[in-house]
Amino acid sequence: MIKTIAFDGDDTLWHHENLFIDTKNKFQKLIQKYTKADDAQEIVAQTQILYLDIFGYGVKGFTLSMIETAIKLTNNKISAPDIQQLIDYGKDMLQHPVILLDDVRETVEKLYECGDFRLMLITKGDLFDQESKVARSGIADYFDGIEIVSEKNASVYARIMEDYNIKPENFLMVGNSIKSDILPVLESGGQAIQIPYYATWEFEKVERGETQKHSFLILEKMKDLLPVIHKIIEQPDKPLASLSE
Amino acid sequence: MIKTIAFDGDDTLWHHENLFIDTKNKFQKLIQKYTKADDAQEIVAQTQILYLDIFGYGVKGFTLSMIETAIKLTNNKISAPDIQQLIDYGKDMLQHPVILLDDVRETVEKLYECGDFRLMLITKGDLFDQESKVARSGIADYFDGIEIVSEKNASVYARIMEDYNIKPENFLMVGNSIKSDILPVLESGGQAIQIPYYATWEFEKVERGETQKHSFLILEKMKDLLPVIHKIIEQPDKPLASLSE
Repeated sequence: MIKTIAFDGDDTLWHHENLFIDTKNKFQKLIQKYTKADDAQEIVAQTQILYLDIFGYGVKGFTLSMIETAIKLTNNKISAPDIQQLIDYGKDMLQHPVILLDDVRETVEKLYECGDFRLMLITKGDLFDQESKVARSGIADYFDGIEIVSEKNASVYARIMEDYNIKPENFLMVGNSIKSDILPVLESGGQAIQIPYYATWEFEKVERGETQKHSFLILEKMKDLLPVIHKIIEQPDKPLASLSE
Repeated sequence: MIKTIAFDGDDTLWHHENLFIDTKNKFQKLIQKYTKADDAQEIVAQTQILYLDIFGYGVKGFTLSMIETAIKLTNNKISAPDIQQLIDYGKDMLQHPVILLDDVRETVEKLYECGDFRLMLITKGDLFDQESKVARSGIADYFDGIEIVSEKNASVYARIMEDYNIKPENFLMVGNSIKSDILPVLESGGQAIQIPYYATWEFEKVERGETQKHSFLILEKMKDLLPVIHKIIEQPDKPLASLSE
Protein backbone atom coordinates (compact mmCIF):
# COMPACT_ATOMS: atom_id res chain seq x y z
CA MET A 1 0.00 0.00 0.00
CA ILE A 2 1.52 3.28 -1.12
CA LYS A 3 1.48 6.07 1.48
CA THR A 4 4.33 8.26 0.27
CA ILE A 5 4.93 9.37 -3.30
CA ALA A 6 8.35 10.90 -3.90
CA PHE A 7 9.30 12.77 -7.05
CA ASP A 8 12.67 13.36 -8.59
CA GLY A 9 13.31 16.99 -9.64
CA ASP A 10 15.59 17.40 -12.66
CA ASP A 11 14.01 16.02 -15.86
CA THR A 12 11.02 14.66 -13.92
CA LEU A 13 9.35 17.80 -12.57
CA TRP A 14 11.31 20.39 -14.52
CA HIS A 15 13.51 20.58 -17.59
CA HIS A 16 17.20 20.19 -16.88
CA GLU A 17 19.21 18.03 -19.30
CA ASN A 18 18.11 20.25 -22.22
CA LEU A 19 20.14 23.10 -20.67
CA PHE A 20 23.26 20.95 -20.70
CA ILE A 21 22.57 19.89 -24.30
CA ASP A 22 22.09 23.52 -25.38
CA THR A 23 25.28 24.59 -23.63
CA LYS A 24 27.29 21.74 -25.12
CA ASN A 25 26.04 22.84 -28.55
CA LYS A 26 27.20 26.39 -27.86
CA PHE A 27 30.52 25.00 -26.67
CA GLN A 28 30.93 23.04 -29.92
CA LYS A 29 30.31 26.22 -31.92
CA LEU A 30 32.68 28.36 -29.86
CA ILE A 31 35.46 25.80 -30.20
CA GLN A 32 35.13 25.74 -34.01
CA LYS A 33 37.19 28.94 -34.16
CA TYR A 34 40.19 26.94 -33.02
CA THR A 35 39.76 23.34 -34.09
CA LYS A 36 37.87 21.20 -36.56
CA ALA A 37 37.12 18.61 -33.87
CA ASP A 38 33.45 17.78 -34.22
CA ASP A 39 33.30 15.70 -31.04
CA ALA A 40 33.85 18.56 -28.59
CA GLN A 41 30.46 17.88 -27.00
CA GLU A 42 31.31 14.25 -26.28
CA ILE A 43 34.71 15.18 -24.91
CA VAL A 44 33.28 17.77 -22.54
CA ALA A 45 30.73 15.17 -21.41
CA GLN A 46 33.52 12.65 -20.76
CA THR A 47 35.56 15.23 -18.86
CA GLN A 48 32.57 16.05 -16.68
CA ILE A 49 32.09 12.38 -15.83
CA LEU A 50 35.83 11.96 -15.25
CA TYR A 51 35.77 14.72 -12.63
CA LEU A 52 32.52 13.75 -10.87
CA ASP A 53 34.62 12.36 -8.01
CA ILE A 54 36.21 15.76 -7.49
CA PHE A 55 33.48 18.21 -8.50
CA GLY A 56 30.27 16.25 -7.88
CA TYR A 57 27.13 16.88 -9.92
CA GLY A 58 25.96 20.24 -11.09
CA VAL A 59 26.58 23.25 -13.25
CA LYS A 60 29.71 24.61 -11.54
CA GLY A 61 31.67 21.39 -11.98
CA PHE A 62 30.38 21.15 -15.53
CA THR A 63 31.58 24.69 -16.26
CA LEU A 64 35.05 23.95 -14.89
CA SER A 65 35.13 20.75 -16.99
CA MET A 66 34.11 22.79 -20.05
CA ILE A 67 36.97 25.28 -19.53
CA GLU A 68 39.52 22.52 -19.05
CA THR A 69 38.28 20.70 -22.17
CA ALA A 70 38.44 23.91 -24.19
CA ILE A 71 42.05 24.48 -23.13
CA LYS A 72 43.00 20.94 -24.15
CA LEU A 73 41.08 20.84 -27.43
CA THR A 74 42.50 24.17 -28.57
CA ASN A 75 46.08 23.28 -27.56
CA ASN A 76 46.18 26.22 -25.17
CA LYS A 77 45.06 28.63 -27.91
CA ILE A 78 41.65 29.58 -26.51
CA SER A 79 41.50 33.28 -25.65
CA ALA A 80 40.60 34.71 -22.27
CA PRO A 81 37.38 36.33 -23.61
CA ASP A 82 36.24 32.94 -24.91
CA ILE A 83 36.90 31.40 -21.51
CA GLN A 84 34.88 34.23 -19.98
CA GLN A 85 32.14 33.23 -22.43
CA LEU A 86 32.19 29.69 -21.01
CA ILE A 87 31.88 31.06 -17.46
CA ASP A 88 28.93 33.12 -18.66
CA TYR A 89 27.29 29.98 -20.11
CA GLY A 90 27.57 28.48 -16.64
CA LYS A 91 26.05 31.55 -15.01
CA ASP A 92 23.20 31.50 -17.54
CA MET A 93 22.48 27.88 -16.70
CA LEU A 94 22.42 28.62 -12.97
CA GLN A 95 20.04 31.51 -13.46
CA HIS A 96 17.86 29.94 -16.11
CA PRO A 97 14.14 29.95 -15.27
CA VAL A 98 12.83 26.66 -13.89
CA ILE A 99 10.43 25.32 -16.51
CA LEU A 100 8.04 22.65 -15.27
CA LEU A 101 7.34 19.72 -17.57
CA ASP A 102 3.84 19.37 -18.99
CA ASP A 103 1.09 18.55 -16.48
CA VAL A 104 3.47 18.56 -13.52
CA ARG A 105 1.75 21.36 -11.62
CA GLU A 106 -1.73 19.87 -12.08
CA THR A 107 -0.60 16.37 -11.14
CA VAL A 108 1.22 17.42 -7.98
CA GLU A 109 -1.62 19.75 -7.02
CA LYS A 110 -4.26 17.00 -7.36
CA LEU A 111 -2.18 14.51 -5.42
CA TYR A 112 -1.76 17.11 -2.69
CA GLU A 113 -5.47 17.92 -2.63
CA CYS A 114 -6.65 14.32 -2.55
CA GLY A 115 -4.77 14.01 0.76
CA ASP A 116 -4.20 10.26 0.41
CA PHE A 117 -0.43 10.50 0.17
CA ARG A 118 2.48 12.26 1.74
CA LEU A 119 4.40 13.91 -1.12
CA MET A 120 8.15 14.24 -1.18
CA LEU A 121 10.78 15.67 -3.49
CA ILE A 122 14.11 13.84 -3.60
CA THR A 123 16.58 15.51 -5.89
CA LYS A 124 20.28 15.04 -6.53
CA GLY A 125 22.95 17.60 -7.21
CA ASP A 126 24.43 20.83 -6.03
CA LEU A 127 22.72 21.94 -2.79
CA PHE A 128 22.66 25.65 -3.54
CA ASP A 129 21.51 25.21 -7.15
CA GLN A 130 18.84 22.63 -6.26
CA GLU A 131 17.47 24.74 -3.38
CA SER A 132 17.26 27.67 -5.73
CA LYS A 133 15.42 25.59 -8.34
CA VAL A 134 13.02 24.13 -5.79
CA ALA A 135 12.23 27.64 -4.54
CA ARG A 136 11.72 28.97 -8.07
CA SER A 137 9.64 25.96 -9.18
CA GLY A 138 6.54 27.39 -7.49
CA ILE A 139 5.43 23.91 -6.33
CA ALA A 140 7.64 23.48 -3.26
CA ASP A 141 4.71 23.94 -0.86
CA TYR A 142 3.04 20.76 -2.04
CA PHE A 143 5.86 18.64 -0.66
CA ASP A 144 5.88 17.49 2.92
CA GLY A 145 9.58 16.69 2.72
CA ILE A 146 12.32 17.92 0.41
CA GLU A 147 15.62 16.07 0.37
CA ILE A 148 18.60 17.22 -1.65
CA VAL A 149 21.26 14.53 -1.80
CA SER A 150 24.67 14.27 -3.40
CA GLU A 151 24.03 10.72 -4.63
CA LYS A 152 21.00 8.47 -5.08
CA ASN A 153 21.75 4.91 -4.11
CA ALA A 154 19.90 2.27 -2.07
CA SER A 155 21.49 3.32 1.21
CA VAL A 156 20.56 6.97 0.67
CA TYR A 157 16.92 5.98 0.01
CA ALA A 158 16.99 3.70 3.07
CA ARG A 159 18.31 6.59 5.19
CA ILE A 160 15.57 8.92 3.95
CA MET A 161 12.84 6.33 4.61
CA GLU A 162 14.22 5.85 8.13
CA ASP A 163 14.37 9.60 8.78
CA TYR A 164 10.75 10.00 7.70
CA ASN A 165 9.52 6.77 9.31
CA ILE A 166 8.43 5.33 5.97
CA LYS A 167 8.26 1.59 5.45
CA PRO A 168 9.75 0.62 2.07
CA GLU A 169 6.52 -1.09 1.00
CA ASN A 170 4.68 2.21 1.50
CA PHE A 171 7.10 4.18 -0.67
CA LEU A 172 6.74 5.00 -4.36
CA MET A 173 9.37 6.94 -6.30
CA VAL A 174 8.56 8.67 -9.59
CA GLY A 175 11.50 9.71 -11.72
CA ASN A 176 13.12 9.74 -15.12
CA SER A 177 16.40 8.03 -14.32
CA ILE A 178 16.55 4.24 -14.10
CA LYS A 179 19.95 4.49 -12.45
CA SER A 180 19.05 7.05 -9.79
CA ASP A 181 15.28 6.91 -9.32
CA ILE A 182 14.28 3.32 -10.12
CA LEU A 183 16.90 0.62 -9.44
CA PRO A 184 18.11 1.86 -6.01
CA VAL A 185 14.50 2.31 -4.82
CA LEU A 186 13.58 -1.22 -5.90
CA GLU A 187 16.74 -2.45 -4.20
CA SER A 188 15.74 -0.81 -0.94
CA GLY A 189 12.31 -2.45 -1.05
CA GLY A 190 10.28 0.46 -2.41
CA GLN A 191 8.34 0.77 -5.64
CA ALA A 192 9.12 2.99 -8.60
CA ILE A 193 7.58 4.41 -11.75
CA GLN A 194 9.75 5.72 -14.54
CA ILE A 195 8.67 8.65 -16.71
CA PRO A 196 11.57 9.01 -19.17
CA TYR A 197 12.79 12.43 -20.24
CA TYR A 198 13.43 12.87 -23.96
CA ALA A 199 17.16 12.89 -23.36
CA THR A 200 19.25 10.91 -20.88
CA TRP A 201 22.60 12.08 -19.61
CA GLU A 202 25.29 9.57 -20.59
CA PHE A 203 26.19 8.97 -16.96
CA GLU A 204 22.62 7.98 -16.07
CA LYS A 205 22.37 5.33 -18.76
CA VAL A 206 22.28 1.71 -17.63
CA GLU A 207 22.86 -1.57 -19.41
CA ARG A 208 19.75 -3.10 -20.88
CA GLY A 209 20.40 -6.34 -18.98
CA GLU A 210 20.38 -4.38 -15.70
CA THR A 211 16.83 -3.13 -16.19
CA GLN A 212 15.46 -6.44 -17.42
CA LYS A 213 16.19 -8.04 -14.07
CA HIS A 214 13.60 -5.76 -12.52
CA SER A 215 9.99 -5.04 -13.30
CA PHE A 216 8.69 -1.55 -12.91
CA LEU A 217 6.10 0.58 -14.58
CA ILE A 218 7.13 3.00 -17.33
CA LEU A 219 4.80 5.85 -18.20
CA GLU A 220 5.15 8.00 -21.27
CA LYS A 221 4.31 11.28 -19.63
CA MET A 222 3.33 12.89 -16.33
CA LYS A 223 -0.31 13.04 -17.52
CA ASP A 224 -0.45 9.25 -17.25
CA LEU A 225 0.44 9.22 -13.55
CA LEU A 226 -2.90 10.13 -11.96
CA PRO A 227 -4.87 7.32 -13.65
CA VAL A 228 -2.27 4.85 -12.34
CA ILE A 229 -2.48 6.34 -8.85
CA HIS A 230 -6.26 5.90 -8.96
CA LYS A 231 -5.78 2.25 -9.77
CA ILE A 232 -3.36 1.97 -6.87
CA ILE A 233 -6.01 3.45 -4.56
CA GLU A 234 -8.65 1.04 -5.91
CA GLN A 235 -6.45 -2.06 -5.86
CA PRO A 236 -3.79 -1.37 -3.24
CA ASP A 237 -2.54 -4.98 -3.17
CA LYS A 238 -2.03 -5.46 -6.88
CA PRO A 239 1.66 -5.33 -7.93
CA LEU A 240 2.45 -1.96 -9.39
CA ALA A 241 4.30 -3.34 -12.41
CA SER A 242 1.19 -5.23 -13.48
CA LEU A 243 -0.94 -2.09 -13.67
CA SER A 244 -1.20 -0.78 -17.18
CA GLU A 245 -1.90 2.87 -17.79
CA MET B 1 19.74 22.75 30.33
CA ILE B 2 21.87 21.74 27.38
CA LYS B 3 21.00 18.38 25.81
CA THR B 4 22.37 18.81 22.30
CA ILE B 5 25.78 20.20 21.39
CA ALA B 6 26.16 21.05 17.70
CA PHE B 7 29.49 21.85 16.09
CA ASP B 8 30.26 23.84 13.00
CA GLY B 9 32.70 22.13 10.60
CA ASP B 10 34.91 24.53 8.61
CA ASP B 11 37.35 26.43 10.85
CA THR B 12 35.80 24.97 13.99
CA LEU B 13 36.53 21.26 13.69
CA TRP B 14 38.93 21.38 10.76
CA HIS B 15 41.10 23.91 8.95
CA HIS B 16 39.41 25.56 5.98
CA GLU B 17 39.95 29.30 5.56
CA ASN B 18 43.73 28.77 5.47
CA LEU B 19 43.28 26.88 2.17
CA PHE B 20 41.54 29.91 0.67
CA ILE B 21 44.24 32.21 2.01
CA ASP B 22 46.99 30.01 0.55
CA THR B 23 45.26 29.83 -2.81
CA LYS B 24 44.69 33.59 -2.93
CA ASN B 25 48.42 34.02 -2.26
CA LYS B 26 49.23 31.70 -5.16
CA PHE B 27 46.76 33.63 -7.30
CA GLN B 28 48.48 36.90 -6.43
CA LYS B 29 51.83 35.45 -7.50
CA LEU B 30 50.53 33.97 -10.74
CA ILE B 31 48.93 37.26 -11.73
CA GLN B 32 52.22 39.16 -11.21
CA LYS B 33 53.36 37.95 -14.65
CA TYR B 34 50.73 40.19 -16.20
CA THR B 35 50.03 43.07 -13.87
CA LYS B 36 51.56 45.00 -11.02
CA ALA B 37 48.25 45.06 -9.16
CA ASP B 38 49.03 44.10 -5.58
CA ASP B 39 45.40 43.82 -4.51
CA ALA B 40 44.53 40.75 -6.61
CA GLN B 41 43.68 38.78 -3.49
CA GLU B 42 41.17 41.37 -2.30
CA ILE B 43 39.60 41.60 -5.75
CA VAL B 44 39.16 37.85 -6.04
CA ALA B 45 37.60 37.88 -2.56
CA GLN B 46 35.19 40.63 -3.63
CA THR B 47 34.31 38.76 -6.82
CA GLN B 48 33.56 35.63 -4.83
CA ILE B 49 31.22 37.54 -2.53
CA LEU B 50 29.63 39.29 -5.52
CA TYR B 51 28.73 35.94 -7.06
CA LEU B 52 27.57 34.16 -3.89
CA ASP B 53 23.99 34.61 -5.10
CA ILE B 54 24.76 32.70 -8.27
CA PHE B 55 27.43 30.22 -7.21
CA GLY B 56 26.76 29.74 -3.50
CA TYR B 57 29.54 28.92 -1.03
CA GLY B 58 32.40 26.61 -1.76
CA VAL B 59 35.51 25.92 -3.76
CA LYS B 60 33.95 25.53 -7.21
CA GLY B 61 32.32 28.96 -7.17
CA PHE B 62 35.53 30.41 -5.73
CA THR B 63 37.53 28.86 -8.59
CA LEU B 64 35.19 30.30 -11.21
CA SER B 65 35.44 33.69 -9.47
CA MET B 66 39.23 33.39 -9.53
CA ILE B 67 39.29 32.71 -13.29
CA GLU B 68 36.95 35.62 -14.01
CA THR B 69 39.03 37.94 -11.83
CA ALA B 70 42.23 36.82 -13.57
CA ILE B 71 40.72 37.57 -16.98
CA LYS B 72 39.68 41.06 -15.86
CA LEU B 73 42.89 41.95 -14.00
CA THR B 74 45.09 40.89 -16.92
CA ASN B 75 42.95 42.67 -19.52
CA ASN B 76 42.28 39.38 -21.30
CA LYS B 77 45.99 38.59 -21.47
CA ILE B 78 46.09 35.59 -19.17
CA SER B 79 47.16 32.45 -21.04
CA ALA B 80 45.19 29.22 -21.21
CA PRO B 81 47.87 27.28 -19.27
CA ASP B 82 47.65 29.81 -16.46
CA ILE B 83 43.88 29.41 -16.39
CA GLN B 84 44.41 25.65 -16.22
CA GLN B 85 46.67 26.36 -13.25
CA LEU B 86 43.79 28.14 -11.50
CA ILE B 87 41.50 25.14 -12.15
CA ASP B 88 44.19 22.92 -10.67
CA TYR B 89 44.34 25.13 -7.56
CA GLY B 90 40.60 24.48 -7.19
CA LYS B 91 41.05 20.72 -7.61
CA ASP B 92 43.86 20.76 -5.04
CA MET B 93 41.62 22.54 -2.56
CA LEU B 94 38.83 20.01 -3.09
CA GLN B 95 41.18 17.10 -2.58
CA HIS B 96 43.21 18.60 0.24
CA PRO B 97 43.40 16.37 3.33
CA VAL B 98 41.01 17.36 6.10
CA ILE B 99 43.17 18.53 9.00
CA LEU B 100 41.44 18.63 12.36
CA LEU B 101 42.16 21.59 14.63
CA ASP B 102 44.06 20.93 17.86
CA ASP B 103 42.21 18.90 20.49
CA VAL B 104 39.13 18.44 18.32
CA ARG B 105 39.27 14.66 18.17
CA GLU B 106 39.79 14.29 21.92
CA THR B 107 37.06 16.79 22.78
CA VAL B 108 34.44 15.25 20.53
CA GLU B 109 35.42 11.77 21.65
CA LYS B 110 35.08 12.63 25.34
CA LEU B 111 31.74 14.35 24.81
CA TYR B 112 30.54 11.28 22.94
CA GLU B 113 31.78 8.92 25.63
CA CYS B 114 30.29 10.86 28.53
CA GLY B 115 26.89 10.21 26.95
CA ASP B 116 25.27 13.31 28.47
CA PHE B 117 24.67 15.06 25.15
CA ARG B 118 23.47 14.35 21.68
CA LEU B 119 26.20 15.59 19.33
CA MET B 120 25.50 17.18 15.97
CA LEU B 121 27.49 18.62 13.11
CA ILE B 122 25.93 21.56 11.27
CA THR B 123 28.04 22.75 8.40
CA LYS B 124 27.47 25.17 5.55
CA GLY B 125 28.61 24.97 1.96
CA ASP B 126 28.76 22.77 -1.07
CA LEU B 127 26.96 19.48 -0.37
CA PHE B 128 29.37 17.23 -2.23
CA ASP B 129 32.49 18.90 -0.85
CA GLN B 130 31.17 18.99 2.72
CA GLU B 131 30.06 15.33 2.65
CA SER B 132 33.49 14.41 1.39
CA LYS B 133 35.15 16.40 4.18
CA VAL B 134 32.90 14.95 6.86
CA ALA B 135 33.70 11.43 5.61
CA ARG B 136 37.43 12.13 5.53
CA SER B 137 37.45 13.86 8.94
CA GLY B 138 37.45 10.50 10.71
CA ILE B 139 35.12 11.80 13.43
CA ALA B 140 31.76 11.52 11.64
CA ASP B 141 30.66 8.54 13.74
CA TYR B 142 30.55 10.62 16.90
CA PHE B 143 27.70 12.72 15.55
CA ASP B 144 24.12 11.64 15.96
CA GLY B 145 22.99 14.05 13.26
CA ILE B 146 24.88 15.71 10.41
CA GLU B 147 23.24 18.59 8.60
CA ILE B 148 24.78 20.25 5.56
CA VAL B 149 22.99 23.49 4.75
CA SER B 150 23.38 26.13 2.09
CA GLU B 151 22.91 28.98 4.57
CA LYS B 152 22.95 29.38 8.33
CA ASN B 153 20.27 31.72 9.54
CA ALA B 154 17.74 31.63 12.38
CA SER B 155 15.07 29.89 10.30
CA VAL B 156 17.49 27.18 9.21
CA TYR B 157 18.46 26.52 12.84
CA ALA B 158 14.78 26.52 13.83
CA ARG B 159 14.03 24.00 11.07
CA ILE B 160 16.84 21.70 12.22
CA MET B 161 15.72 21.90 15.87
CA GLU B 162 12.18 21.03 14.78
CA ASP B 163 13.37 18.10 12.63
CA TYR B 164 15.34 16.69 15.55
CA ASN B 165 12.76 17.54 18.21
CA ILE B 166 15.15 19.81 20.06
CA LYS B 167 13.86 22.64 22.23
CA PRO B 168 15.92 25.80 21.65
CA GLU B 169 16.79 26.05 25.35
CA ASN B 170 18.38 22.60 25.14
CA PHE B 171 20.56 23.50 22.15
CA LEU B 172 24.15 24.71 22.22
CA MET B 173 26.07 25.60 19.07
CA VAL B 174 29.88 25.75 19.02
CA GLY B 175 31.47 27.51 16.07
CA ASN B 176 33.97 30.06 14.86
CA SER B 177 31.66 32.39 12.96
CA ILE B 178 29.68 35.03 14.81
CA LYS B 179 27.56 35.58 11.72
CA SER B 180 26.74 31.93 11.00
CA ASP B 181 27.19 30.02 14.24
CA ILE B 182 26.41 32.50 17.02
CA LEU B 183 23.93 35.27 16.19
CA PRO B 184 21.31 33.16 14.33
CA VAL B 185 21.39 30.51 17.08
CA LEU B 186 20.86 33.14 19.79
CA GLU B 187 18.07 34.59 17.67
CA SER B 188 16.32 31.24 17.48
CA GLY B 189 16.49 30.82 21.26
CA GLY B 190 19.49 28.53 21.52
CA GLN B 191 22.86 29.12 23.15
CA ALA B 192 26.22 29.49 21.50
CA ILE B 193 29.93 29.44 22.22
CA GLN B 194 32.40 31.01 19.85
CA ILE B 195 35.88 29.58 19.30
CA PRO B 196 37.42 31.99 16.78
CA TYR B 197 39.66 30.73 14.00
CA TYR B 198 42.86 32.68 13.43
CA ALA B 199 41.43 34.10 10.20
CA THR B 200 37.90 35.16 9.37
CA TRP B 201 36.55 35.25 5.83
CA GLU B 202 35.57 38.81 4.92
CA PHE B 203 31.96 37.74 4.31
CA GLU B 204 31.61 36.28 7.81
CA LYS B 205 32.69 39.46 9.55
CA VAL B 206 30.05 41.37 11.47
CA GLU B 207 29.83 44.88 12.78
CA ARG B 208 31.09 45.30 16.31
CA GLY B 209 27.79 46.83 17.40
CA GLU B 210 25.96 43.75 16.21
CA THR B 211 27.82 41.45 18.58
CA GLN B 212 27.63 43.81 21.53
CA LYS B 213 23.85 43.47 21.60
CA HIS B 214 24.28 39.84 22.53
CA SER B 215 26.17 38.04 25.24
CA PHE B 216 27.83 34.78 24.49
CA LEU B 217 30.87 32.92 25.64
CA ILE B 218 34.10 33.16 23.65
CA LEU B 219 36.75 30.51 24.15
CA GLU B 220 40.28 30.78 22.89
CA LYS B 221 40.66 27.20 21.78
CA MET B 222 38.88 23.85 21.59
CA LYS B 223 40.82 22.66 24.63
CA ASP B 224 38.82 25.13 26.75
CA LEU B 225 35.48 23.60 25.83
CA LEU B 226 35.36 20.53 28.08
CA PRO B 227 35.94 22.49 31.33
CA VAL B 228 33.02 24.75 30.35
CA ILE B 229 30.83 21.76 29.57
CA HIS B 230 31.62 20.35 32.99
CA LYS B 231 30.48 23.59 34.58
CA ILE B 232 27.29 23.38 32.52
CA ILE B 233 26.69 19.87 33.86
CA GLU B 234 27.32 21.04 37.43
CA GLN B 235 25.28 24.23 37.20
CA PRO B 236 22.73 23.62 34.45
CA ASP B 237 20.68 26.69 35.28
CA LYS B 238 23.47 29.24 35.28
CA PRO B 239 23.50 31.44 32.18
CA LEU B 240 26.17 30.23 29.80
CA ALA B 241 27.58 33.66 29.12
CA SER B 242 28.32 34.10 32.82
CA LEU B 243 30.51 31.00 32.99
CA SER B 244 34.17 31.77 32.70
CA GLU B 245 36.56 29.18 31.37
